[in-house]
Amino acid sequence: MRLSRYYMPLMRETPAEAQIVSHRLMLRAGLIRQMSAGIYAWLPLGKRVLAKIEQIVREEQNRAGAVEVLMPTIQSADLWRESGRYDAYGAEMLRIKDRHDREMLYGPTNEEMITDIFRSTVKSYRQLPLNLYHIQWKFRDEVRPRFGIMRGREFLMKDAYSFDLSAEDARKSYRKMFIAYLRTFARMGLKSVPMRADTGPIGGDLSHEFIILAETGESQVFCHRDLIEMPVPGEDFDFDGDTESVVNQRTSLYAATEEMHNAEAFAALPDDKQVSARGIEVGHIFYFGTKYSKAMGAKVAGPDGTDVTVEMGSYGVGVSRLMGAIIEANHDENGIIWPDSVAPFDVGLIDLKPGDPVTGELCARIYRDLTQAKLDVLYDDTEERTGAKFASMDLIGVPWQIIVGPKGATKGVVEIKNRRTGERAEMTPEAAIARFAAKDM
Amino acid sequence: MRLSRYYMPLMRETPAEAQIVSHRLMLRAGLIRQMSAGIYAWLPLGKRVLAKIEQIVREEQNRAGAVEVLMPTIQSADLWRESGRYDAYGAEMLRIKDRHDREMLYGPTNEEMITDIFRSTVKSYRQLPLNLYHIQWKFRDEVRPRFGIMRGREFLMKDAYSFDLSAEDARKSYRKMFIAYLRTFARMGLKSVPMRADTGPIGGDLSHEFIILAETGESQVFCHRDLIEMPVPGEDFDFDGDTESVVNQRTSLYAATEEMHNAEAFAALPDDKQVSARGIEVGHIFYFGTKYSKAMGAKVAGPDGTDVTVEMGSYGVGVSRLMGAIIEANHDENGIIWPDSVAPFDVGLIDLKPGDPVTGELCARIYRDLTQAKLDVLYDDTEERTGAKFASMDLIGVPWQIIVGPKGATKGVVEIKNRRTGERAEMTPEAAIARFAAKDM
Repeated sequence: MRLSRYYMPLMRETPAEAQIVSHRLMLRAGLIRQMSAGIYAWLPLGKRVLAKIEQIVREEQNRAGAVEVLMPTIQSADLWRESGRYDAYGAEMLRIKDRHDREMLYGPTNEEMITDIFRSTVKSYRQLPLNLYHIQWKFRDEVRPRFGIMRGREFLMKDAYSFDLSAEDARKSYRKMFIAYLRTFARMGLKSVPMRADTGPIGGDLSHEFIILAETGESQVFCHRDLIEMPVPGEDFDFDGDTESVVNQRTSLYAATEEMHNAEAFAALPDDKQVSARGIEVGHIFYFGTKYSKAMGAKVAGPDGTDVTVEMGSYGVGVSRLMGAIIEANHDENGIIWPDSVAPFDVGLIDLKPGDPVTGELCARIYRDLTQAKLDVLYDDTEERTGAKFASMDLIGVPWQIIVGPKGATKGVVEIKNRRTGERAEMTPEAAIARFAAKDM
Repeated sequence: MRLSRYYMPLMRETPAEAQIVSHRLMLRAGLIRQMSAGIYAWLPLGKRVLAKIEQIVREEQNRAGAVEVLMPTIQSADLWRESGRYDAYGAEMLRIKDRHDREMLYGPTNEEMITDIFRSTVKSYRQLPLNLYHIQWKFRDEVRPRFGIMRGREFLMKDAYSFDLSAEDARKSYRKMFIAYLRTFARMGLKSVPMRADTGPIGGDLSHEFIILAETGESQVFCHRDLIEMPVPGEDFDFDGDTESVVNQRTSLYAATEEMHNAEAFAALPDDKQVSARGIEVGHIFYFGTKYSKAMGAKVAGPDGTDVTVEMGSYGVGVSRLMGAIIEANHDENGIIWPDSVAPFDVGLIDLKPGDPVTGELCARIYRDLTQAKLDVLYDDTEERTGAKFASMDLIGVPWQIIVGPKGATKGVVEIKNRRTGERAEMTPEAAIARFAAKDM
C-alpha cells in the first residue's frame, strides 16, 4: 500500500480523555475513532489488525473442532423470556422495539439463540459432540464506557457453545476450548494465564478467565509464577487425544481472580512463586450444564432411545478488546510494537527523498518484489519530513522498516530496522528483499 | 471437513413460507435459519458461502483503490439530524434509546457517519481522491420482510463512499466503482447489467443499479440484449487509466429500471435487441455531489488555500442478498449448483460403504491429499443410505463429487461427477487427486 493513497489519520496530541496507554496509542496511530460513547469506528490500520486477530481466533477454533456459524445481532425478547434472563439481565441489555412494537434486543451474548437453533435441528446423540461458534458484534450498554475499546459498548466477540450427552463429555469439550485459548493468545504474542473465575450471570460451577498480566489491567489477580512462562501445546496437538494432562498441569497451580481468591492458599506458595498483579481478561470459559437446555427443552434421543437434556458450555474471546491487550503488552515511548502475527503491515518502506529518481526506483522495486512475495508493505512515498516519517512508522508499530536514502541508494545499500529492538543493519536491496521474502523475520 | 463432525441440518420438506426458489433451497440445504421476521442465522454452509462472497467484494474494492474501514452498527441520531434524514427516513429506520435515554439507531446506511469521519480527519486536497468502504451489518425495518435473505431486515452490505475535489474527479471515482462492480459480479458467475436508476432517498442525479436477470426478480427491467453478454475488464485492468471507454460502451446502450424506463427509446431498439425481463438488484451506485458534505461541513483546503466542499458518491453491494441472486441463477430440480468461486466446498467426497476398510482407507487418503493441496473437501463419512448421500450432495451444490464405492475401490477406481453437467467419469484415485489438486476444475 502506498501511503499517498492510503488513509491513516494520525493524531499529534495525546487525547485528554484517554487514560490508558492502549487507548491513547490507538487514537494517536489512527486505529480507531470514537463515534459515540463506547462506540468506535475502525480506521484502515485498526481494521487490518482486527482482521488478523479474528483470523487467528477462527483458525484455533476450527483446529479444536468447533464449527463456525453466524448469528444475527438483533434477537427476539421472547427467546430470553424462556431462559428467564430477559428480566434478569438489567440495564446493560440494549432493548429495542421494532415498527410493529415487538420487543427485540441487541444481543449481549447468544446462549438462548444457539440453544434454540440446536433444539430445532439436532435430534440424536449421534450428532454430538457439537461445538458451534461465531464471531459477531455484541452490545452491552455499559453505564460508563471507558478505556477505549477495552470497555466499549459495541464490541466484537467470539462466542462458542458446546453440546454434549454427558457431564463427562462436556468437560472434554471444555478442555478443548481451554487448550485452544492457550494457543490463540500465544499466537498473538500474549502470555495468558487461565484462572478460576466466578461464573456470574452466565451460570454454572466451572469457569476460567484467561488473563494477560499488565500494569494497567482492570482487576487484581493472583497466580503461581510458573504459569506465566509455561509452554503452550503446538500446532500438531491432538484435540481428540489426551487433553487432561495439559489442563491439569495448569489447574494444579494456584491462579485466581479477585472474586475467587483464597488468601490462605496463595500464602502457602513459596514466596518467590507468588505473583500478585493487575490483569486484563481476554477470554472466559464456562461449563454450566443444563441451565439453558433444561429451561428451553434442548434434548436429544440417547443411545437407548430416551430423551437426554444436553450438557452445555460457552466460551468467549474478546476479539476487539484483544487489540488493546496486545498494545498494553507491546509498546514503548515511541508507540506500538506489533507482534508479527497481528501487525497491520509486515514491513514499512520509507523513501527518504521522494521525487528523487534513484530512491524512487529502488523503493518501487523493493515494493513490487515484497508484494509479489505476499508481504504486506506500507510504502511511505509521501513528501513528509524525514523526522516525521520515522516518528509515524515507529508510532504505528510495523515490525520492520526498510529505509531508502539517497546516499545509500547511490552506494547500492538500504537500511533495515527492527522496531522492537531498534537494531539497524545496512545491506543490499537484494539481501533485504531475500530476507523478508523468505519471511525470515 | 468430515460430515460426521460437521453441522449441516438439511430439511426434507419444502417450507411453506418460502415463495421463491432461493429461499426454499437456502432453508432445505441448511444455509440459513430464520430467527425472527427477516432476521436469519447463517449456518455453517451459509457462513462459508457468505465469507467467499465477502472476500470477492473486498478484493475488487481494494483493486479499484478503495480502502477498508469498519464503522459500528449503532449510530447517534444527532448525526442524522445534521443531514436532515433523521426525520425523513421514516419507519424503516430502527430507532433505539440507550440507558441514558439518548437517541440512537441501527445504521441502515452510513453517509452521515463517513462524512463525519472525513470532516474530522481530512484537511487538504492532497489527501484526495479518497474512497472508504466497509462491509458491515445493516438494519432496515421492512414492513413485510420476504423472500428469505433477499429482503430481510438485518443484512450484510458493502458500502463505499468517495470524496473528491471536483465533479470531474467524482465522476472518475464513480467509474472506478462501476467497473469494480462489473468484475465483482462476474467473478461470482453472474451476468450483471448496469441500468440507469432512480436515486431515491440517497439523493443526487447520477445512479446505476446493477441487475441480475432472473425469472423471480423483484422488478421489471429493460435493456439492450448486447449488454447481457458484454465482456468484463480483466484482472490487469488499469483503474488509473481510461475508465471512460468501458463505462461509455455500456451506458450508450439502453438499460433502465422501471422507474427510469422510457418506452419510446426502448421501442426504437431493433426488435431482437429488446430485453424486457425481471431483475434482481445486487448493487447500486450514486453520485450525489455535495448533498451531505454541504449539510455537514465536509471541506478541504484546495490548491489555492480556499476551502472546497467535497464531492461525494456512495456505492452499495448487497453481500448477503447476493447469495440469493446466485442461487436464483444457479440451480436445478435437485438443488443448488454453486459457481466454483463461492462454493462452500470445492469437492464432495462420498464413501458409499462406511465401515468398509477398503473404501475408508481410500477416502482418507483422497481427503488428506486434497486438503494438503488447500482444497476444501466435504467428506461424507456418515452411515446414511447411498441414495440420501447422493441427494444431499446434489442439494447443497458442491461443484464436484468424488464417489468411492467398494467395487471401484477394489478395482482401483473412483467416480468423479460434475454437479452442473451431471457428467461422470471413472479414474484412478491418483488421477482424481492430481486433477483437483491442480485446481483444473
